[in-house]
Order: sequence, then C-alpha cells, then structure tokens
Amino acid sequence: MKTAVRRSKVANKAQTKKTKDARFVYFFGNGKAQGNQKMKSLLGGKGANLAEMTNLGIPVPPGFTITTEACDLFYQAGKKWPRGLEDQIKANLVKLEKAMGAKFGDRDNPLLVSVRSGAAASMPGMMDTVLNLGLNSEVVQGLIIKTENERFAWDAYRRFIQMFGNVVMNVEHHNFEHILEKKKEQLGVTDDTQLNANDLKDVVRQFKRMYEEETSQEFPSDPYEQLTKSIDAVFTSWNNPRALKYRQLNEIRGLLGTAVNVQSMVYGNMGDTSGTGVCFTRNPSTGENKFYGEFLVNAQGEDVVAGIRTPEPLSEMSKQWPEMYKQLVGIRNRLERHYRDMQDIEFTIQEGKLFLLQTRNGKRTAEAAVRTAVELVKEGLINQDEAIMRVDPRQLDQLLHPMFDPSQKKDVLVKGLPASPGAATGKVVFNAEDAEAWAAKGESVILVRIETSPEDIGGMHAAKGILTARGGMTSHAAVVARGMGKCCVAGAGDISIDYGTRQFAVGSVTVREGDWISLDGSLGHVHVGKLDTIEPELSSDFHKLMKWADKARKMNVRTNADSPHDSEVAIKFGAEGIGLCRTEHMFFEGDRIIAVREMILADDVAGREAALQKLLPIQRSDFEGIFKVMKGLPVTVRLLDPPLHEFLPHEEENQRAMAGVMKVSVEVIRRKVAALHEFNPMLGHRGCRLGITYPEIYKMQARAIMEAACNMKKKGIKVLPEIMVPLVGIDKEFRILKDDIVKTVEDVFEEKGIKVPYLIGTMIEIPRAALTAGRIAETAEFFSFGTNDLTQMALGFSRDDAGTFLGDYLEKGIYETDPFQSLDQEGVGLLVQLGVEKGRKVRSGLKVGICGEHGGDPASVEFCHRVGMNYVSCSPFRVPIARLAAAQAVVRERRKK
Amino acid sequence: MKTAVRRSKVANKAQTKKTKDARFVYFFGNGKAQGNQKMKSLLGGKGANLAEMTNLGIPVPPGFTITTEACDLFYQAGKKWPRGLEDQIKANLVKLEKAMGAKFGDRDNPLLVSVRSGAAASMPGMMDTVLNLGLNSEVVQGLIIKTENERFAWDAYRRFIQMFGNVVMNVEHHNFEHILEKKKEQLGVTDDTQLNANDLKDVVRQFKRMYEEETSQEFPSDPYEQLTKSIDAVFTSWNNPRALKYRQLNEIRGLLGTAVNVQSMVYGNMGDTSGTGVCFTRNPSTGENKFYGEFLVNAQGEDVVAGIRTPEPLSEMSKQWPEMYKQLVGIRNRLERHYRDMQDIEFTIQEGKLFLLQTRNGKRTAEAAVRTAVELVKEGLINQDEAIMRVDPRQLDQLLHPMFDPSQKKDVLVKGLPASPGAATGKVVFNAEDAEAWAAKGESVILVRIETSPEDIGGMHAAKGILTARGGMTSHAAVVARGMGKCCVAGAGDISIDYGTRQFAVGSVTVREGDWISLDGSLGHVHVGKLDTIEPELSSDFHKLMKWADKARKMNVRTNADSPHDSEVAIKFGAEGIGLCRTEHMFFEGDRIIAVREMILADDVAGREAALQKLLPIQRSDFEGIFKVMKGLPVTVRLLDPPLHEFLPHEEENQRAMAGVMKVSVEVIRRKVAALHEFNPMLGHRGCRLGITYPEIYKMQARAIMEAACNMKKKGIKVLPEIMVPLVGIDKEFRILKDDIVKTVEDVFEEKGIKVPYLIGTMIEIPRAALTAGRIAETAEFFSFGTNDLTQMALGFSRDDAGTFLGDYLEKGIYETDPFQSLDQEGVGLLVQLGVEKGRKVRSGLKVGICGEHGGDPASVEFCHRVGMNYVSCSPFRVPIARLAAAQAVVRERRKK
Repeated sequence: MKTAVRRSKVANKAQTKKTKDARFVYFFGNGKAQGNQKMKSLLGGKGANLAEMTNLGIPVPPGFTITTEACDLFYQAGKKWPRGLEDQIKANLVKLEKAMGAKFGDRDNPLLVSVRSGAAASMPGMMDTVLNLGLNSEVVQGLIIKTENERFAWDAYRRFIQMFGNVVMNVEHHNFEHILEKKKEQLGVTDDTQLNANDLKDVVRQFKRMYEEETSQEFPSDPYEQLTKSIDAVFTSWNNPRALKYRQLNEIRGLLGTAVNVQSMVYGNMGDTSGTGVCFTRNPSTGENKFYGEFLVNAQGEDVVAGIRTPEPLSEMSKQWPEMYKQLVGIRNRLERHYRDMQDIEFTIQEGKLFLLQTRNGKRTAEAAVRTAVELVKEGLINQDEAIMRVDPRQLDQLLHPMFDPSQKKDVLVKGLPASPGAATGKVVFNAEDAEAWAAKGESVILVRIETSPEDIGGMHAAKGILTARGGMTSHAAVVARGMGKCCVAGAGDISIDYGTRQFAVGSVTVREGDWISLDGSLGHVHVGKLDTIEPELSSDFHKLMKWADKARKMNVRTNADSPHDSEVAIKFGAEGIGLCRTEHMFFEGDRIIAVREMILADDVAGREAALQKLLPIQRSDFEGIFKVMKGLPVTVRLLDPPLHEFLPHEEENQRAMAGVMKVSVEVIRRKVAALHEFNPMLGHRGCRLGITYPEIYKMQARAIMEAACNMKKKGIKVLPEIMVPLVGIDKEFRILKDDIVKTVEDVFEEKGIKVPYLIGTMIEIPRAALTAGRIAETAEFFSFGTNDLTQMALGFSRDDAGTFLGDYLEKGIYETDPFQSLDQEGVGLLVQLGVEKGRKVRSGLKVGICGEHGGDPASVEFCHRVGMNYVSCSPFRVPIARLAAAQAVVRERRKK
Repeated sequence: MKTAVRRSKVANKAQTKKTKDARFVYFFGNGKAQGNQKMKSLLGGKGANLAEMTNLGIPVPPGFTITTEACDLFYQAGKKWPRGLEDQIKANLVKLEKAMGAKFGDRDNPLLVSVRSGAAASMPGMMDTVLNLGLNSEVVQGLIIKTENERFAWDAYRRFIQMFGNVVMNVEHHNFEHILEKKKEQLGVTDDTQLNANDLKDVVRQFKRMYEEETSQEFPSDPYEQLTKSIDAVFTSWNNPRALKYRQLNEIRGLLGTAVNVQSMVYGNMGDTSGTGVCFTRNPSTGENKFYGEFLVNAQGEDVVAGIRTPEPLSEMSKQWPEMYKQLVGIRNRLERHYRDMQDIEFTIQEGKLFLLQTRNGKRTAEAAVRTAVELVKEGLINQDEAIMRVDPRQLDQLLHPMFDPSQKKDVLVKGLPASPGAATGKVVFNAEDAEAWAAKGESVILVRIETSPEDIGGMHAAKGILTARGGMTSHAAVVARGMGKCCVAGAGDISIDYGTRQFAVGSVTVREGDWISLDGSLGHVHVGKLDTIEPELSSDFHKLMKWADKARKMNVRTNADSPHDSEVAIKFGAEGIGLCRTEHMFFEGDRIIAVREMILADDVAGREAALQKLLPIQRSDFEGIFKVMKGLPVTVRLLDPPLHEFLPHEEENQRAMAGVMKVSVEVIRRKVAALHEFNPMLGHRGCRLGITYPEIYKMQARAIMEAACNMKKKGIKVLPEIMVPLVGIDKEFRILKDDIVKTVEDVFEEKGIKVPYLIGTMIEIPRAALTAGRIAETAEFFSFGTNDLTQMALGFSRDDAGTFLGDYLEKGIYETDPFQSLDQEGVGLLVQLGVEKGRKVRSGLKVGICGEHGGDPASVEFCHRVGMNYVSCSPFRVPIARLAAAQAVVRERRKK
C-alpha cells in the first residue's frame, strides 16, 4: 500500500512533469554530469555513481542515464515509452556523438554503446545488459578501420549478436554456444582466442542465420532500432522472474523500476595493452585495508563476472602495468575518501587508457563489514554511530555460526577459493531444483555446480553451502553467497562434474549425489563426509563494534535458553538474562518422559501429584544449573505450555513400547491419545489452561523454580527468577494462577527459611490479552510478548499450515515479508503497542519484553524499541544481532530528531 | 471481577457498619415492617415482599428477615456468624413472641416458626427450608393443648424432624420415607392421612432413633439450637451444587448470598377449614387476565409445591369458600395494582383465616409474558416501553418453535397437565443422569419421572421435554420447565413408571427406555412415536408487542439463511434481509458434491474451471430462488469459506465410493486428503485464502450471484446483492479479490445488458482485520462481524476443543458466560468496537452488521446497538428475539439518559 501510494504520487508528479516535458535522460561525460550521487532513486545506483565519478573528474566513458521514472511510466502505459523520452534519447545521442567525436551507425567512425540496467538497489546479474550496440555489417567495416583490428571487430560483432539475441529476443544461449563449439571443433582448437577474424566472420554469419530461424525476423541492422529494443529489454528485465525473486529474498521494495545506462563502449579486449578488472577498495572477505581485486588482460568485463575465465589477482597488475596500477590506486583512494566507505569498482583499460565503469559501496562479509566499520572510525572517516549503521545486523549471523572443529582429522579433498566464509555440511545435489526440493524435505544439501547463474538463486538459498568448479572471488556464486551469508567455495578447478551421472570426481575419488561433503568457506576447503563444528571465535573489532552498540542501545537483550549450555553460549554472546526458559523441553529428556506420561495417564489429582513428585527434583536441578550460569541475571521461566498430547506417542509402535514401560495395556494409551486429540491444538487445552484444570502441575513447577533459587542463594549465588504464565487471555485466569503460585512460593520460603526476590508475570500471546492488558497488569508484574502465537492468532493462520498459501501471499505482495520472520507491525504490532500502553497505564514500571522469533529480527527489534520495551529475547546466536539492531534503532531515532 | 469488587465494597461497608452494630435483621408484623419492596438485594425477594405486603396491610404472619449481607459475612468468616447477628436475632425473637402472644419453646403456648431462604433473584426450590421449628417432646404437648388437635401436633412434629434431619443434618429422605411406608404397611393403610395421632407418635419415636443412628447425635431439643442450626443450613444451601448450577444456568451473578426469613408458622393442615394454595394473578401459561391457581384443603404448602398431592383449581375454592375467595381476589387486585405486574402468590388458610406467605412477580411462559405485557398497557398500568422490557427476549424462543403438525394422525396415549407449552419428541429416559449422558451423545431425549426434584435440574435442561406422573401446574417440574421454556406434561396420573425395568405403562401399552415419544406441552398430550412438527402461529398480542419493539429499535434485523425455505421462515419472523447466506451449504446437496470434488481433484486451473462450470448454473439457480423470496431486501452472500478438505470423505469406505464415482483410484483421493490435511484447520487454508490461491472459484461464485440478480431483475423482481469476502486479514488481500469480483460483475452486466445495484464487503472475523479496519474500509463497502471466528481467534480457543476446559472456566467464574453464546464484550467486544470506529472513520456511511451466533443473543444484540451497528443477523427463529432485544437496548439507553 505504502508503495502504491508512493508510486502514484511519483507517477502524478511525473505526469505533471511530462506535460511540461519531464526530463527522463541525464547526460554524463567530459568531466561534467547532469546527475549526481544523491539521485540514486531516479538514476539507479550505477547511473548516479557514473555521474558522480564524472563530476569528480575520474575517467568515465561518456553516456546518459534513462530514469527509473521512465521505467515506471513504461509499465504504467502497458510497456510503451512515455511522451518525450524518444526525443530526449535522440538529443542525448547527438550529445554523446559529439563528446566521443564519433557517429552512431557511422561506417567510418562508428560510436558503439552499452545498454545496462541499474536500479536504486544493487541487484547484481539480475537484469539485462547489451554490449557493442551499434554494429551491423557496414559499421563493422568502420570498426575494422578505426581499430585496425579485424579480429577484434568481428569478435565484437558476434558478441553483440549473441547478447542482443539472447537479451532482447530470448534466443537461448546454447544456440550460440553450439555454433561456436562446432566451429572450434572443425578447426581443431579449444579456445575462443584461437579463432581468427575470418572464423569469427563466419560465426557472425551463422549467428545471424540461426537468429532469423529462431525469431522469424531479420537481425536489425538499424542501430537506433537496436537501441530502442535493448532499452525495452532492460526495462522489461526489471520484472523477470529472477529479478522478482531476488527482490523478494532481499526485501527490496518500493522502487520505481530500473534506470537504463547508455554508455559509449570501451574495450578491454583490444590486445595486450587492454584489460578489465573488478576490485574492492578493501578486502570484501576480511575487511583488511588492502586494495583487492582481479583483472584479466585482453578481456571484456563480462568474462570476469561470468566466471568464464579465472582472472589474476590485482597484485599481478602492479607488476605487469605499474603505471596503470598507480593510477588505479589513486582513484581508489579518492573514491574511498569521497564515499567514506569501501567501494566495489569496475574498470577497463583500452589500449593503455584507464576507464572507470562503475563504483558502488562494496558488498562484504560480516567480518569485513565489522572490520571496515571499525577501521573507518579509526581513520576518522566516520563516527561510531555511522559505524553501527554500517553493519547489517542480519549479516552478523555469518560470524556467529559454528566452524569445523579444528581438532578433528580432516583430509582436504580439493581446494577452491574461499568465496564466502563459514562451514557447511550436507548432501551433494547438482542442480538448484533438487536443492530446493531436498531442503523442503528437511535435508541439508550442498549445491555443486560448474558455475552458477542467476537462475540458480532459489537453490543457492535452499542449500547450506555452494561449491563451484569455475569462477573467481567475484563470480556470480561468490558474490551471491556472500550476500546471503552462505558458505561458498568457488573455482575449485580440480573437480570434474558430470551432471548426467550425478557425480563429481577429484582424481580417483568419486562423490555421488546424496553423499555427504563439508565445505570450509573461510579456507576454501572441501572435505568428504560430515564434519563436526565448533563455536566461532569473535574478533576484537567485533567486540569493539558491539561495545559501541551496547553503549548506544536502550533495550536489554536476553536469550531464549532451556539449558545451562545454551545459557553459557548466550552469555558469551552478550545476553543479559534469559527471556524465555521453556520447561517442557526438559520434560522430554531421558527418563523424565516416563514420569510425565505417568502424570498424563493418572486419573485423579493424587495420581498426578505422585508423578509430579518424581519430576520435582529433576526440574529443580535443571533450574539450579541455569541459575548458576546466569549469576543473578533475570531468568524468566515459562510454566508448562504445550498440550499434554504432545508428550504421548502417536505411532502404534511407540504406543506399544510406552505400554510396556508403563505396565498398562496399549489400549489405555490409545484411549488417552484419542481423548486428548484436538481439532485445533493451537487453540486447545494448553498453556495456562493446563494450570487452571490441573493446578498441581504449575504448583510443582513453581516449587521447583523457587527451591532451586533458594538452594542457590544458600550457596551464595545470586538469583532473580521470573515466573511466567503462558497463554493468559483474561485477567481472572492470571489472578487465580498467581494466587496459587504465590502460596507455593511462600511455602518454599518458609520451608527453606530464606527468601529471594522474584516476579510473577505473563506472556501476552493471545489477542484478548493484549487488548485487555490493563486489567492483566493489575496483577501481572511483567509482560513478555509471545509474538509467535500472537501472530498466528491475530492473523488467523497457523505457522504449520500457512505453507499452502503464504507463498502466494508474499508473491502477490499481500504481506511484504513472512510475518513469522519479521513482525507484522501494522497488525500484530498494533496489538503489541496497545498491550504495552495499556499495561503501563495501570502499572507504570511494568517490565516489558518480547520472546518470540521476532526478538532476533532487526526490523522487529527496532519496533520493540519504538514501543518502549525493556528488552528483547532471542536465540543465543541471534543475541549479537539483536544488540546491534537495538543500537541501530537508537541511532535511527536520533537521526530523525 | 466486577462481582469481586462489588462484594468487597459491600463487605467493607458491612464491616464498617458491623463495628457500629450493623443491622442484620429486619422485622415485619402487625401492619408494619422495617423493610420494603425496594430492599430486595438486602432482604431477598421473599423478605422484601413480605415487608411490603405487611406495610400494605395485607395479612402476613409476622417474622423477621436476616440479610444477605449477613450471609456474605458468614462465608467470609469461614461459616461463622458476624458479630451482632446473634443479639439481633434474639431481640427479634422476643419481638416476634410479643407480636404472636406466644413463646418460643414454651410448653403451654409455643411459638413455632419456619426458616426459609430467599435470595434477591428467584431460585425456586434450590435452597433449603425448615418448617414447624420450635418443637420438642415437651413443646409438642403445648401444641396439642393449643390446637386441641393431637394428630396435627404429632404430624407437625414428625414433619419437623424429617425436614430438620434432611436439611440440617443431611439424613437422606428415604430413611424417613422407609419408616413411614413400613408403618402404613403394618397398619394396612395407603395414605398418610390414615395415620392417627398414636401412629404418628410412634413414627416420631422411630424418626428420632434413626436420626441418632445416622448422625451419631441426639435430635436437638433446644428450639434456639434448632433455629441457629437451621439458619446455618439455609446460609450453607446458598452454595449447594444445585443452587450453583441453577445460578450458572440462569446467569444469576453478583449476589451476596441468600437472606433467611424466620416467620411464625401458620397451618393449612389444621382441618377442613384450613388449606393452602399457590396462585397467579393471571394465567402464567397463556397470560389470560383470570385469577389462576390451585389449592388443597387441609394441607401444608409443601404438599402443593412438591406435587405429592394433586391440588384442585382455584375455581373450586370460590365454590367451597366463597368469602375467603372474595378476600383473596381483593388481595390479588391490590397486589397487581401495587406491583404493576402479574404476581405469583402463596397463601395459607388456618382455620378460616387467610395469610399471605409470599408474593413475587410470577414466572410465565413467553405467551403469557407477551399477553400480560400488552394487556397491562391496555389497562393503563404500564406504557409501551415498559411492555417491551417486560418480556425476556430469550423466552420468545418458546413461541417460535415448531408444534406438531395438526394434520398428522396422532393417537393420544395419555393426557396430563399442559405444564409448559411447545412440542418435543425424543427417546425415553428415566433419570436425569441418563438424560444428560444421552443428550451429550447427540440424542434427543424425553425425561420421564414420577415427579421431579431440584436434583433433576441438569437432566431437565438436557432433555427436549419432561413428562411426570404426579404434580400440578405449580409442581417443581412445571415451574422449572416453564422457566426453561421447555415443553412439559405434568401429572399424567395414568402412567405407571417402573424405574427398575426402565419402562412405563399406560394400560396395556408399554414404553421402554429408548422408545420415541412426543409431548405436546400446550395440550398436555403424550404420543407414542416421533411426530412431525410445523411452524407455530403467532398471536396478535405478539405482533402488537413486536410492532412496538420495531418502532423503538434502531437496528435492522436480518437473518442467516442459505435457502429459499429458510428465507421465507425468516421473512415471516420479520427479517429485513439476509445477513449471511453461506454458499458452501449448497455445495453438499445431491450431485453437486461431485462437481465440487472434481474441482478439488483438478491439477490445474483449466481442470478447476471445467468443474466450476458445472457448479455455476446450480449456484445461480440457488441465488435466483433466494432473491425471489427476498424481493429487493439486501442479501449478503458469503463466498466459499471452509477448507477444501471438508468436501472430501475421510473414511476409507467413503473414499472408495468417491473413487468409483469419480473414476479415479482410491489412492488419488487418499493422497489428496493427505495433501489437504491441516494441523489447525481453523487457522488454515480457507476463506478468502482460497480466493487468492484459486481465483477461479470466487469468480464463478461472483458470476453466479450477479447472473441470478440480473435474471431476476429482468423478471421485474427487485434485487440487492451484497457480495461478502470471508476471513480477510489485510487490506491488500481484499483489494485483490474485490478487483477480481468487480471485473466479473462488469462482465456479467455487459453480457446481460442490464445493471443491478450491489455492494462488495467483507467479514471482519480475524483480529488483524478489526485492528486495521480503517485500511480495509478504504475499499470494503460493508463490514459484517463474524464473531464466531473472531471469538475463537481473539480468545485463542477453538469451539471444538474448548470443551475440555471451558466448563472449569465458567465454574471458576473466569468467563462469566460461554463466550460462544454471549459475546465477550470486554475482549472480543473491544475488537468489534475498534473495527466499527476505524471503519467509519475512513468511510463514514459504512454499513456494519454482525452475523455470528451472537446476533441472536440479547446481551450481544444490546452491545451491537451500543457500538452503532446497522443490523444484526441471526437464525430465522431468533429474529423476533433480536427484534425485541434491539428495542430493549434503545429503551435501556433512554432510561440511562
């Protein structure tokens, strides 16, 4: 909706402008540009930065940018150009011809251009590009004369036909590849470079014939027709399936469309004084402040990005072309100072002349993001607030996930490039569809490809890790995997993959589909089998950044932990308490389940109490362990929540086993299971409803918690238990349970002859509870929003069942994000806000937190900050994410003021 | 909570008073009383009216009333009397002795008293009573002297022992009955009256011995001890299980406790110039303005109420005792004028002297309530607003339910008294437990008892009708059944019931447990077998009252109807449109289900569309039928709502049958059923989610509705379709569906060359929809609150599963009423209110209604009025209830102003 409103506003504006001849085209060239860095939303990232670089005096091939508004109007008009666009393009073409001293379509001195997409948000490889545009059988002669390089000209021409055919007319790549391969076969050569001008001229001829067969059209010889069709193709590529999917996965919303950059061509493939490169002003993997990149001599940029040839590191360039390298370093320094951030640069050297084709803030690993942010502060380029904002909290995940236990023996099967850090272990699959299908069934998979392409994006997302045989650190696989925070080993050239038999070989070792392998994305190692992992080490830069974040944030960050081990991990990650300790997880361990089942099978209170007596010491010792780790930090213990049938076996076989253990007939168990069956367990007999109908259960649990607390205090360990009643819907329900608990607590205090501080509060996870939070706060001493259930009930869909339609809902943009991952702020958020406000109105100091999955989601954490929560609680590994997100919320708020 | 607060306030007040010697006892007698009619909550209904009658100069045996506050404090103090109560009772006893010229416990001129309960709300027979209190073996001699009637005195004594023993000491009735029966057997007599003084003296001796054995205590001879123990017993009876159950069933809440009335005894059993009677100032069954009642010569009141002897009609009294009857009629007239309502009177004649023992507003059938209200207006005693308020809308049910089709041949098996009108048919059961158990399994049952007692109340509630062999129109069975609006035939003396063999006989006909019988409560007829029923005829008084109600109310009343037949019934009951027409009910009929299943089994859109094509003409003709009946009244059609798996068979056998019909393998069906299985169907793939994932379904339905509408319009029939999208949770969801529907509607208009007015709106039944109603109202043209689902989601419990705990919740007072029957105004109501306000803020004229079960619940209807709804919609039979409730809401609002 917001998007729609914004769109129509902009559209109206554009419409108004249009009548006064709106500007759809912005020129850049010869040291002056009509656009600048700030016009990203209009010119796209690439266009804005080309303009900015031009204004900075950095050598950029001249060109012009067609705005995103034009793209928006193109769609609004049913894929027709807005009025005025054609005139403006023609005028700018003339300007460009003048700047270049060449003419479009001229057979003597031809101007060739590239046509590239470029949205406000980076979507690498998702949309279309056409290079060498402007060639036809006459112009190619002009190019030969101009470049004095016949082979180059024919090669450019065949590339152009191939890209145009594929991008504009959807002729499949393999049609072109096939002709090329056959040609090489005929000639007995293996490499494209071995084809001479005549060979390529014949390839062009064959390409054209094939093109005509495939499209039933002649290949357009009019350069202007080539241009308009290419612009249309780029516009259209904004909504191609992989672009849509990419925007959905990356939550890119609210954009008008893509801009189109029409730029004069420069060539890195004009011989040995030409080349092309992609580089980062710092190491995008580690953040090390060292110029980092790759280049290829005598190649076009696409060769680097597509991973077709494996390039050389930038350090080689300083040896081969020291002057050129020095110039590049100078530009690197200027760009970093200017943009105050690490840049991702594309350049081309045409016959010894350096051109910058792109600069943008570089994508980086979490490690690199943290290090860069901290070092930029040290370098005085940014301040601490900016550093906090420079790291995407979601990315931190990468730093926090386990790595392989270094102590275990592990033979390296093969080495590739350490393209994206982390450790992953899974079963081998060889294509994206299988990766998605296997993952959907709960399998861990590693996607193994010769190289990846944008079509593979869904499978890459589904896989635990990615292994490619070809491509460098800036290949598609590497860039995308780093963005996803997914472990990736790229360019492992020693593996030979056979898609047909679904296996790959390294020397004599064969790995088949379904076999386990393990990837170390930080080292680039591939191991056969399933390796154990250990906790990651965190860098001092990480700790520094987190210290800044902790200083900035106002909310506490707690963790959801059910065991001393989880609690310890969380403490290491900076947790300041336990926000949710689920007691039922303890019920499943070992022999405990027997006592639990005895309780469920009991017919009366006495029988239940007898079974609960057995559970009491076990639960008490669990809590003692947790209190010990938490050393006086608050520990919120949730009383029993799931319906009792969850503790009974539902399979015949297991029921028999249980009958044996319990010494009852299987019929008894079957009958109990049937009696406890529910149509909608989510909305059934669970949570505090169990406490109301079986008060003895909650009494036992309250006793276990408080006995543990008293025992620890006697040992000199500080404790701060918070007893939490789940699923409260109405004040009186909580009153009754609180009275019971208080009585138990007081009994324990008397028996132990000691008292400890404690609170009794409730989860707010039923809409009614949020709506009547004021009444509940009359007795509840704290609120913890259980946004998982609150989302299910407020939205009316169960997480287990939403799978059948939630995909459609996200695709149609009905919900912008999965509401189980990121809080639905408009709906569920309103309930949360009402709950906080109403609760605090009655009890001004009410402690309020959140303990749903959302507690570790940055957008949701920011929401929690805005509504004034005291803390968020999330899984241990998400604690640093929440800490950073909580800090960013404060910084963002400050900036608004 | 409200209750709790009120209680503690009153308690505090009482506490304060207590320290200043609070008044716990109010005297009445000799033409002057300390209390009056307005003090019901303090003195109970009986006490307040005894005081009022005393003040009116009507002969009432003197006595005093112990307040409900005293009862409350008694409970608060752990069943101990509050300070001051004892002194006040003693002082009032002295006053009473003075008034009566007799002395409590005196062997020469003894004062005997009754001790009766009496709460602010009538709870007939629920609490305890002790009569003839003050007797012991010495006092009985004084009574013999005083009454000159030895037999009477011993009979009074044995009755006292029996009541005291049972009420105060819980000695089972049958222990006493057994002694009495044995005595009669020994003497070869059948009737109590055939026992002479000596026989009764011996019975008293045996009663006392048995009492001592049963209680291990001597029977108390001290009258004051008898009194204090009886008062305690009455206090205690406030919370006996049947009283608790009665209050729960009748939604009696917020009372402090029961008052206790200690009153000097008068005797209707002192010979042939004595008697007792119970009467109504008008006929409580029909409302006819004719003095109506029953009396028994030489009997105590309990004999009438308990149905032990069948009394004579009051008309007989005018013949036997014309003077006494004239005096009674005079009192009747004074009481009606004074109370401006029909009164229920108890009187006793002791040796030619008339005493009133009770007056209260008489319970009446719906028919009587309507007629009385209308006639009281005619008589100028009340105005129309008061008449509207005089009829409990829930009672109207009685008038609206079917009666037996008079055209069918039906032999009367036996005749009894027409104790409570209506028609019922069911299987015979012989005790209350069976009635409850069978009904719980879904059986229709008729409870057949020799006579009923308060213990039977649960079974009476569960039964469709009640048949008794003994007792009159004011017997327990008759009074309770009328209160419940339940069909009852009482005192069918010709049936002989054998509880042992579980059968009853009428002459040679034997009816066994489980056999079907049918009761006509309006005629008192019993029929063997299952009879068909027809719609009831409504009286002109009913129509007059409803006209007044229609004039008063501001909300429209619509109906939930899925067929032309239901629509017709509803129109007859005054429905002003259809608020909910469920399209899925139509899907199950006849062969339609085959097409529905074809649609579900289809793998693609084309397959679904083919199946939907078959459904289109069927649905269209359904809608045509409904539009025809509704003649231009609004018809809200809800698009498909239930999950698709509801249309598939789940049993192996039925799956096989379906496979045969569909010509697919059973495996295909099994797989589909499995694929559609949901963990929480309530929160699953249903409602408009089906419209999002399968747009073709809603398109077909929209087409069927609008084609039907256009076809009808062409025939000159006015139509007003309102297309309703169910289960909307978020604005964009509705926008997308509305766009689809509008397109379809416009297509139909074009095809038909005609247009009809129509609206497209949504149900608000998901909490999120209510919370974001403003956004939804941007496009929705009406809202209909689906409070069934809204309740389930807002409260977090499923109606199907709540059975396991909702009982506990109601018992513990966590919810005061079943939230599925009467809207939870605090929680769900807040959502409704927010929804209405937010919706109207965006679209000021937004039409808002309700279509959940609550639309026919009077308290909920009043709520709907308060939040400003345009209409309520309910099942056809509840339409008059809603009309009256909507009018009462207005009157109540007026009175508040």
